[in-house]
Amino acid sequence: MQMSKRISSFQASPIRRLVPYARAAEKKGIHVIHLNIGQPDIRTPEEAIKAVHGYNEPYIAYGLSEGEPELREGLCEYYKKYNATVAPDEIMITTGGSEALQFVFMTLCDPYDEVIIPEPFYTNVSTFAATAMVNLVPVTSRIDDAFVLPSIEEFEARISKKTMAILLCSPNNPTGHVYTRQELSDLLQLCKKYDIFLIVDEVYREFCYDGAKFTSVLTFEEYADRIICIDSFSKRFSMCGARIGAIVSHNKEVLASAMKLAQARLCPPAIEQVAAVAALKAPEEYIEAVREEYERRRNMLVSGIQEIPGCKVSRPKGAFYFVVDFPIDDAEKFSVFMLRDFSWEGNTVMFAPAEDFYVTKHLGKTQARIAYVLNEDELRKAVKCLEEGLKAYRRKCCNQQGFSGYNQ
Amino acid sequence: MQMSKRISSFQASPIRRLVPYARAAEKKGIHVIHLNIGQPDIRTPEEAIKAVHGYNEPYIAYGLSEGEPELREGLCEYYKKYNATVAPDEIMITTGGSEALQFVFMTLCDPYDEVIIPEPFYTNVSTFAATAMVNLVPVTSRIDDAFVLPSIEEFEARISKKTMAILLCSPNNPTGHVYTRQELSDLLQLCKKYDIFLIVDEVYREFCYDGAKFTSVLTFEEYADRIICIDSFSKRFSMCGARIGAIVSHNKEVLASAMKLAQARLCPPAIEQVAAVAALKAPEEYIEAVREEYERRRNMLVSGIQEIPGCKVSRPKGAFYFVVDFPIDDAEKFSVFMLRDFSWEGNTVMFAPAEDFYVTKHLGKTQARIAYVLNEDELRKAVKCLEEGLKAYRRKCCNQQGFSGYNQ
Repeated sequence: MQMSKRISSFQASPIRRLVPYARAAEKKGIHVIHLNIGQPDIRTPEEAIKAVHGYNEPYIAYGLSEGEPELREGLCEYYKKYNATVAPDEIMITTGGSEALQFVFMTLCDPYDEVIIPEPFYTNVSTFAATAMVNLVPVTSRIDDAFVLPSIEEFEARISKKTMAILLCSPNNPTGHVYTRQELSDLLQLCKKYDIFLIVDEVYREFCYDGAKFTSVLTFEEYADRIICIDSFSKRFSMCGARIGAIVSHNKEVLASAMKLAQARLCPPAIEQVAAVAALKAPEEYIEAVREEYERRRNMLVSGIQEIPGCKVSRPKGAFYFVVDFPIDDAEKFSVFMLRDFSWEGNTVMFAPAEDFYVTKHLGKTQARIAYVLNEDELRKAVKCLEEGLKAYRRKCCNQQGFSGYNQ
Repeated sequence: MQMSKRISSFQASPIRRLVPYARAAEKKGIHVIHLNIGQPDIRTPEEAIKAVHGYNEPYIAYGLSEGEPELREGLCEYYKKYNATVAPDEIMITTGGSEALQFVFMTLCDPYDEVIIPEPFYTNVSTFAATAMVNLVPVTSRIDDAFVLPSIEEFEARISKKTMAILLCSPNNPTGHVYTRQELSDLLQLCKKYDIFLIVDEVYREFCYDGAKFTSVLTFEEYADRIICIDSFSKRFSMCGARIGAIVSHNKEVLASAMKLAQARLCPPAIEQVAAVAALKAPEEYIEAVREEYERRRNMLVSGIQEIPGCKVSRPKGAFYFVVDFPIDDAEKFSVFMLRDFSWEGNTVMFAPAEDFYVTKHLGKTQARIAYVLNEDELRKAVKCLEEGLKAYRRKCCNQQGFSGYNQ
């Protein structure tokens, strides 16, 4: 008995596969600072927790496959803040943004169809594409260009008969780029020309910095039929474990088709939907305070890492990640070293090696994705760990393999 | 822009696709008695609801992809009641039994591989198989044989190089058959001979009637490596909306492989896992009272429907469903008629047409799956509705099409 060839070919999540090393470090009494995962330490809105405490149904019943009406109505209200007009039946609640992406791949694509995506991108998209047997066709965005949208010509050059959609994430995980109205407009024109969809994952919508304004793809009404927005409560309300996401589209056929998948899995989690309804009622100040907090953290961590000799960082404009290029041979080896062989005053750092955030081979090998979701004290310690860790790693490499690194 | 061919070929759930008719009936003020879906009206254990009320984390954080340790440990204790010895790392918590089945298909099978399954079977398995591009190969179990396991020769005749597993559900949804130790043992011998897996969905494990004893597949230790058990909290604790299920296997490679899918979707819902941990602590009397309640309901509804002229029922031994063969031309048309054109004293009945519970064409066309999860008052009304509805439907068919039905 063997496992399937496909499962054997799937990658383990680079965000999570080093967890055993982290656990081993923790067992040794080392404090591991988790920059690998976007798990904020910010409080969930108290409205959400209170709603959970007020849950008072006699039994936890199946809900509607498309999600509870109250939640979809609440989202419609919420989208108005972003100048988007959405009706409740244009929303399907999913079990996290993860399920939303899986449903959309299955709905739009047959096996071997293609979706074009700027790389680096959120690595789990690879697994969702692979389960749907969809080929991701990358267009490389570059750290030296601050990860802006590559030229439309580059996208156009990759469109084939098998292309069903272009997939963006804005604000971007992992690069922090916030796509401009112009960039979105250019892409939509291209999508119209080739009659394909634009899918935009906007789960970090709230988190734009330096006064930048966010443009939701849902505001492009003339292209309404070819737009699919992926959403999630995880980051916005610091409720990642709730697994409440959504597919939003004015295209009724997309939702009616995805409904077949939704009905098969019955419904999204019930109590978490109650929490989500309440979270939407959190005051505007909650979100604004969270945004400000992330901006402070970004400022602190980006400056700190930029000052480490040899580290290259593109200052992110949104979300709560950035990509760092380390002066080393291999970010995954460095990550293992940090967890297994290194500590600084009892601390070490875990980050996500970025190679699997690229489809193109050999790109991103020296890069990592860093999440700045922890408080500033932790981030300060993290900078020091990275600085000392890099020195130690490069010393070790020099000794063992004569590796000289990037001596700058 | 068109939807994918595959999504267009997927069936809409026969359990849920008639919901628009039910809603329209309800809008007209008609009380719809839902025999279509296994949504019990029995209380969730108060331990679970109290645990939800006691949820007191500052933020709803991501959990482990394989589920919380406390929940997996709790399940190990629970399985002891069924004489099964399971370790926490032999359990993966999933978002419902639905996700467990999807993970197992992806893990064991490549596209066009085959899984053998007795039909009729829980219809959503078809969609999970289709998303994984797995072909379900049916072996027909028959109402006249009380839906016992078809002969081992019939299974053996269907094994090919592409067969990766046999999939059972025991106690069975939709037939109510409880597979005996001998039936399981015979199948496991066959699986060993051809080096394939046996997957058993045991989510109705508690619900066996007439003093019948349940045999868990987890007790067959000599075949441990080729056994995968699917589990869920939904039915046992009347918490269908919680979406907490599990994959249980002594085969470490199965769990390690499924882990790639689990990590990509991050984690199962957090608060619902807290509820599940507490539900496992409900006293034995809770489950026993629920079991007795279902047994009473079964007795009432089965007897009632057996007395309707022309209705054939195989008395179920477990779970909370049975298959009824109606004296009509088409159970789906009859279901639409019941919801759209009929009421009796302000009531009508919704049930799940059974044709989609079969792979073999034309089987089950006159059959429906009936769930007996409602209280006896509702069930009594349901019997009367079905009796009167059948008369009215057959009169209408005779008038319109000269259809004579099965005049018995």
